[in-house]
Amino acid sequence: MEAKKAHESYTEMNELVLPNDTNTFGNLMGGRLLYWMDICAAMAAQKHCSNVVVTASVDNVSFKRSIKLGEVVTIQAQVTRAFNTSVEVRMEIFAQNLPKGTKEKSNEAFYTFVALDPEGKPKAVPQLIPETEKEKQLYDEAQQRRELRLILAGKLKPENATELKNVVGLFDHKG
Amino acid sequence: MEAKKAHESYTEMNELVLPNDTNTFGNLMGGRLLYWMDICAAMAAQKHCSNVVVTASVDNVSFKRSIKLGEVVTIQAQVTRAFNTSVEVRMEIFAQNLPKGTKEKSNEAFYTFVALDPEGKPKAVPQLIPETEKEKQLYDEAQQRRELRLILAGKLKPENATELKNVVGLFDHKG
Amino acid sequence: MEAKKAHESYTEMNELVLPNDTNTFGNLMGGRLLYWMDICAAMAAQKHCSNVVVTASVDNVSFKRSIKLGEVVTIQAQVTRAFNTSVEVRMEIFAQNLPKGTKEKSNEAFYTFVALDPEGKPKAVPQLIPETEKEKQLYDEAQQRRELRLILAGKLKPENATELKNVVGLFDHKG
Amino acid sequence: MEAKKAHESYTEMNELVLPNDTNTFGNLMGGRLLYWMDICAAMAAQKHCSNVVVTASVDNVSFKRSIKLGEVVTIQAQVTRAFNTSVEVRMEIFAQNLPKGTKEKSNEAFYTFVALDPEGKPKAVPQLIPETEKEKQLYDEAQQRRELRLILAGKLKPENATELKNVVGLFDHKG
Amino acid sequence: MEAKKAHESYTEMNELVLPNDTNTFGNLMGGRLLYWMDICAAMAAQKHCSNVVVTASVDNVSFKRSIKLGEVVTIQAQVTRAFNTSVEVRMEIFAQNLPKGTKEKSNEAFYTFVALDPEGKPKAVPQLIPETEKEKQLYDEAQQRRELRLILAGKLKPENATELKNVVGLFDHKG
Amino acid sequence: MEAKKAHESYTEMNELVLPNDTNTFGNLMGGRLLYWMDICAAMAAQKHCSNVVVTASVDNVSFKRSIKLGEVVTIQAQVTRAFNTSVEVRMEIFAQNLPKGTKEKSNEAFYTFVALDPEGKPKAVPQLIPETEKEKQLYDEAQQRRELRLILAGKLKPENATELKNVVGLFDHKG
Repeated sequence: MEAKKAHESYTEMNELVLPNDTNTFGNLMGGRLLYWMDICAAMAAQKHCSNVVVTASVDNVSFKRSIKLGEVVTIQAQVTRAFNTSVEVRMEIFAQNLPKGTKEKSNEAFYTFVALDPEGKPKAVPQLIPETEKEKQLYDEAQQRRELRLILAGKLKPENATELKNVVGLFDHKG
Repeated sequence: MEAKKAHESYTEMNELVLPNDTNTFGNLMGGRLLYWMDICAAMAAQKHCSNVVVTASVDNVSFKRSIKLGEVVTIQAQVTRAFNTSVEVRMEIFAQNLPKGTKEKSNEAFYTFVALDPEGKPKAVPQLIPETEKEKQLYDEAQQRRELRLILAGKLKPENATELKNVVGLFDHKG
Repeated sequence: MEAKKAHESYTEMNELVLPNDTNTFGNLMGGRLLYWMDICAAMAAQKHCSNVVVTASVDNVSFKRSIKLGEVVTIQAQVTRAFNTSVEVRMEIFAQNLPKGTKEKSNEAFYTFVALDPEGKPKAVPQLIPETEKEKQLYDEAQQRRELRLILAGKLKPENATELKNVVGLFDHKG
Repeated sequence: MEAKKAHESYTEMNELVLPNDTNTFGNLMGGRLLYWMDICAAMAAQKHCSNVVVTASVDNVSFKRSIKLGEVVTIQAQVTRAFNTSVEVRMEIFAQNLPKGTKEKSNEAFYTFVALDPEGKPKAVPQLIPETEKEKQLYDEAQQRRELRLILAGKLKPENATELKNVVGLFDHKG
Repeated sequence: MEAKKAHESYTEMNELVLPNDTNTFGNLMGGRLLYWMDICAAMAAQKHCSNVVVTASVDNVSFKRSIKLGEVVTIQAQVTRAFNTSVEVRMEIFAQNLPKGTKEKSNEAFYTFVALDPEGKPKAVPQLIPETEKEKQLYDEAQQRRELRLILAGKLKPENATELKNVVGLFDHKG
Repeated sequence: MEAKKAHESYTEMNELVLPNDTNTFGNLMGGRLLYWMDICAAMAAQKHCSNVVVTASVDNVSFKRSIKLGEVVTIQAQVTRAFNTSVEVRMEIFAQNLPKGTKEKSNEAFYTFVALDPEGKPKAVPQLIPETEKEKQLYDEAQQRRELRLILAGKLKPENATELKNVVGLFDHKG
């Protein structure tokens, strides 16, 4: 199973915010965005794994900017690191008002996915090769995010975490 | 603005898993569950706040058990603590196979919501009174989860976190 | 096949009224409510029968109060009586305006369901044990509603109806 | 306000049964059919009233034949009688398997609608002129169905019902 | 395989324009109409073919009139001609404002469909018998539209087109 | 109003084919694809026009390859030419089976859109600057496609078409 480059999994989704996606303020509901993000990230994970995948976890997501009815949500997803049978996918989400020509970053997020064989059992996935500086940084930090995930899920004791140094900004990059 | 008891915000949602909610394995897609959770938690938050609310953040969610087509997803949401203009909502999610009579816990999660006035500005919310042992524990830990959220979002330096002691199990309670 | 208590089938559904559920007045369309009621009642029926069920009939439903966009529809369903291969489910429907803290009864309704085996043939269901006064009243009247259903469907002659005494209020209880 | 002929309100709807409309047997869910029937009947009512309408009630509906995924549901709706501010609409529902060339009657139903003015208050509607024998029969019986509806809703005492003679077959015509 | 008359395939669909079908002007989105047209035309094609069909092509469609939220879209479809394994379906689309009692033609269109056997291979279809003057004209011109389709798809050289005389109005009939 | 470069309007949409998007063969319905194409092309048109737009026409589209449940539809849209108040958008559609790593071209299409001012009247749009060879070819041919559209719609007599030379392949480019 040959390793793949990070950018090969790049996937972009553009969705128009329709009436049924909005709350009584006319803003996109958070849950609707989480649904689209899941589909976009799953596509990126499937590209890397060349396999069907299922969602394993969602990391802390904060919603900083309301997105309006009629705006376009742009989701850019790319695998950051592969583990044995799972991958971590990072997304950047933007809100575009096309008539006004504006594009603002809304938030970012990390989802993880597990590859499954036809019997539904976890299956090995190709390793990932980061190339750019940003990809390498995300690759390195992925191990820390993984440890934090395990700690938060009660599966790892903090004193056994060997990689986790500084959680500040682990889930929220500038740029 | 009078404080409210925790259980007053209790909200239960039951959703039948239909074909369009499933992936090619016939399992509920993670994003669809996150969408329902957002709506259920928002209802609990609105009950407590007596006000419209918008989703502010989602904490780490892990999906431990696949939920099948035709099963029923039960989401039980309750506010754990109120801050100035926001509340934290905890949910427990169960999967029921009604013909078989089984009910298994799928996962749990914490979402936060901000109350908004008609101009869309944050607005003060009633304080919350925990009553049971479990409610008091969740209330106490909410401050730690809040600090961790701020740290992960890069808004608080770990050395300034005064409440955060032990993140183990903060987001994943047994029972 | 052991009899089950009425309250074991209790099922509650809470649905947020979204734009696509509404007519040009911004009110929930009657048909959308009938759809949700069918799913909620089918859940209650499946709990009692421990079997898949299909809708057999809907009794007279009247819509007394308009439900608005952004309000929450609460449906409470419980089996009232089991016959050989079918059950009757009663529902009470409420409309909640969560920001205002109001909760008003909208209407009530009876649906019946048939349990089917894997070949699609009707299958025996467990008997039902009513416990509270209200449950006992609904249980007793169920036989009359059943006779009226058969008469209205042309399957029973009124003169052969042995239970049907007074149809007033049979489908519409106060409280 | 000029009276209108019954057939002027005739409306036909054809809907393809898609995966999300079906239960685990691959059959159309009853609630989905009730939703389509509401929209079709409302169209017929609006044609007669030349006004927006809202659903007031649904009479007893029984589901006699399962309708399969991929089949076409044909709903034929026509107003049977106009009262002061409301109308009664009768529907016949058929299931068509187009590749096989079969068309079978599934069931029939009566819905009532109220015409509303822009402030949401009931508004007078045109009277209806029945022309065929069938239309005249349905027109005559409409008064009885109305009395039964009022009795079942607890708004009329059976002893005050002046029209109601024989409820057999009132809601279920042959042909 | 016996030939069928044109009118035997006639199919009418009536759809209510709901919020999620509209753009920010409150008008029906063109793509939503194309979706409904595909389903309606496929029903007409299946009636003629007594077989499942898949969409093969859509001819030039122009949208001349905006259709509003709350209006009813009426689609009338009928097969115009059968070829070896495919049929051409013509549709007329109307927009009705039922409360106002208006009905205006919106546009017309031609879709083609291929009949498939269970293995997904093209399958012979019954020939079509046009009866009215209009049906005969549409039948005759269908050969020209077919040639134009093949030319536009690069499958036929214009000099080899034997039927194509005058494309003016081929896709847009008055009345 | 400054002219814009063709590639500035480039928009890509990736959609996962879910159960409700498919026919009884498990293939994507043509109408569903036309719906997604309309939304994607409208986004590209809005980017170029910096204005809201509505669909004016769809050119001949042929569906050459079936797209399966679980595959991903990739739509790539870019404006080819601007006229006074309208633009032509070209799309290429691909079907990806991500687990298998395949990506095949499904078809291509041209939609046109009109820019509207807040009163719903057509509004001038920026001119378009083609840069690559391909963009220049599409730009040049756009005038011919426009003339053919007008001829087919009965708005231009063929003898008055000054640009239209050879319709072969006008709507179907290799690569």
